[in-house]
Amino acid sequence: MIEGLLTKVRSQKPLVHHITNIVTVNDCANITLAVGALPVMAHALEEVEDMVKAASSLVLNIGTLTPEQVEAMIKAGKKANELGIPVVLDPVGAGATPLRTESTWRILNEVKVSVIKGNSAEIGVLAGAGGEIRGVEAVKSSENLLTAAKNMAKALRSIVVITGATDIVTDGHRVAYVDNGHYLMGTITGTGCMLASVIGGFCGAERDYFKASIAALVVFGLAGELAAKRPEVRGPASFKTCFFDEIYNITEEKIKGGSKYKIV
Amino acid sequence: MIEGLLTKVRSQKPLVHHITNIVTVNDCANITLAVGALPVMAHALEEVEDMVKAASSLVLNIGTLTPEQVEAMIKAGKKANELGIPVVLDPVGAGATPLRTESTWRILNEVKVSVIKGNSAEIGVLAGAGGEIRGVEAVKSSENLLTAAKNMAKALRSIVVITGATDIVTDGHRVAYVDNGHYLMGTITGTGCMLASVIGGFCGAERDYFKASIAALVVFGLAGELAAKRPEVRGPASFKTCFFDEIYNITEEKIKGGSKYKIV
Amino acid sequence: MIEGLLTKVRSQKPLVHHITNIVTVNDCANITLAVGALPVMAHALEEVEDMVKAASSLVLNIGTLTPEQVEAMIKAGKKANELGIPVVLDPVGAGATPLRTESTWRILNEVKVSVIKGNSAEIGVLAGAGGEIRGVEAVKSSENLLTAAKNMAKALRSIVVITGATDIVTDGHRVAYVDNGHYLMGTITGTGCMLASVIGGFCGAERDYFKASIAALVVFGLAGELAAKRPEVRGPASFKTCFFDEIYNITEEKIKGGSKYKIV
Repeated sequence: MIEGLLTKVRSQKPLVHHITNIVTVNDCANITLAVGALPVMAHALEEVEDMVKAASSLVLNIGTLTPEQVEAMIKAGKKANELGIPVVLDPVGAGATPLRTESTWRILNEVKVSVIKGNSAEIGVLAGAGGEIRGVEAVKSSENLLTAAKNMAKALRSIVVITGATDIVTDGHRVAYVDNGHYLMGTITGTGCMLASVIGGFCGAERDYFKASIAALVVFGLAGELAAKRPEVRGPASFKTCFFDEIYNITEEKIKGGSKYKIV
Repeated sequence: MIEGLLTKVRSQKPLVHHITNIVTVNDCANITLAVGALPVMAHALEEVEDMVKAASSLVLNIGTLTPEQVEAMIKAGKKANELGIPVVLDPVGAGATPLRTESTWRILNEVKVSVIKGNSAEIGVLAGAGGEIRGVEAVKSSENLLTAAKNMAKALRSIVVITGATDIVTDGHRVAYVDNGHYLMGTITGTGCMLASVIGGFCGAERDYFKASIAALVVFGLAGELAAKRPEVRGPASFKTCFFDEIYNITEEKIKGGSKYKIV
Repeated sequence: MIEGLLTKVRSQKPLVHHITNIVTVNDCANITLAVGALPVMAHALEEVEDMVKAASSLVLNIGTLTPEQVEAMIKAGKKANELGIPVVLDPVGAGATPLRTESTWRILNEVKVSVIKGNSAEIGVLAGAGGEIRGVEAVKSSENLLTAAKNMAKALRSIVVITGATDIVTDGHRVAYVDNGHYLMGTITGTGCMLASVIGGFCGAERDYFKASIAALVVFGLAGELAAKRPEVRGPASFKTCFFDEIYNITEEKIKGGSKYKIV
């Protein structure tokens, strides 16, 4: 199902406009380049509409949100909607503070989001299934999460992606489970943010966002697995270097041999 | 004196809420994770109180301050004080501009700080012992620094940490000298900021902040020494990778074998 | 022509005050250190004048500009002009949005810039020669670019630097072509920003900004070539580590042996 998508990204080089946090913005730019797309970061209210016009997708990440930044996200998101450009939302820390939860809902109410991606607590809280978050990390998730996520996907007409040991992708009807990944990915900050950038890259090249999200998760997780096998890896920082290199060196052939997902 | 503290950090995984600068924020998050704590970065006035409620410690770093950010720091700091959550202050560049010096004093006047950590010029200026700073780097320090720092610690009822070839920690009565460290740590930007994050991690797990600060300095400096010995190191960037990995790989046993500090 | 300039940077350790973007700010600080200068990042309106007073050069980079940040740039730039401190402008994405193009012109109209450095599209748009930019990357450049750049340099009495496979430096009369560099430099984000920091470092130590710019381009490109030869390089991230290390390890001798430039 995901064959050829990486090749599409690399030949089209979609421009991925990010409005994102200050913590992982450099990693997001570099991973976007590594996967074969082009990043641009622009958050000024005065230019987000102009920048999104040139973009193939828009990634909104509330990791270090402010109310002003949320305004810029909504402005950019509305323009993206108007132009048919996919919007990927990463509601970092939704559930951790009222500002984050409410801002996520403001965005969801005003912008048609193509993909919303979060950990089990973020999606759990937003989907009304509960969940517990500490800072930006899920500490408890709901048993009803899948049902809630499917309902959320239907209601928003969006793809919902839940990251975890097994990642889940749903459009409200179909559900994909992706088993690629490695625990070392959790030892560095920002893997969630970087994944959203990679989803943005794939959605910029492939209009079936369900497929695009699965492909992004597979590529991302597989690169993590390949990196973890490298003899250079001695901890999180050497792993991170290898991980970026593996994203850059991923091929359709490696995906064919290493992807682990099923659709039910 | 510092035995078991690393284990405490790793078992408790304290959440360290940072309000920090845009230059080294990613490194601060990654080092917090590497040492075994959890980072969260949040600076919006609208959410800092909510975020600090969930935290085990608060790190304030004025490296790229604005007056608005200082407001957020004070708001978060007051809430932390109310809840008994330790506050670590890194007055980056105090003495370099009036804004930095005055903002540091505003914070110190409004927030009870558990640990204040700076280089010899930053602490020298704040403690009234003089000192000279160029940008954010100490170029001249006072001979009266130790006495001034002890007086400052007493007056603020805080731990004062002065970084340098030999680091100094004082609560106004006791003084600890920590000799761990390596000159390569000074070839990368942000080691000071990262140290504050590690102090934040230890203070989040250990309420004796004098001990916690010593442990943080030992772990930090020792990891630098171990990294510098790695054959991969060919300059600042490869050193940095090794340094993060060594922080992640540090153990109680390595600390026992490699710590260099004395308390007088 | 560029002999001894690296030694000057390393002995004088010029303080390079940056007002720059959130994406690559950490890399800019680290490359400034690696080349032998000192970085400081400060953007608050309340302190930019105080900080620039202590600096040897000022680097302005509009990569993630806001109108407020542009105000700070102009304030700092005017103070730098008053004190005879060189100003390096990196008009990231000029031509991509009206905000970027207009802000660049506002800066150029209010601040005497010593060096303006951009890719072929950024300079092409500003110099009136046309060009096409997508996000922050040049996709089409003009054939009249060199003439336009020379005219621009004369009109602004600035050095104009155009980056590309062959970099161009002109003061309006002389033109230097620099052939150092490697394609892997384009696989990581922010090489353009980092180059501006290195130019800032050289201009902080050498008042002939034409020479300083050439030296910076040679050192930067040569480090890229040397890094690309390292056996550790397996992709963009391992290349980046080696690149920073090579900048740190560059010597007058390596420059003598490896520089590729001609002045016509």
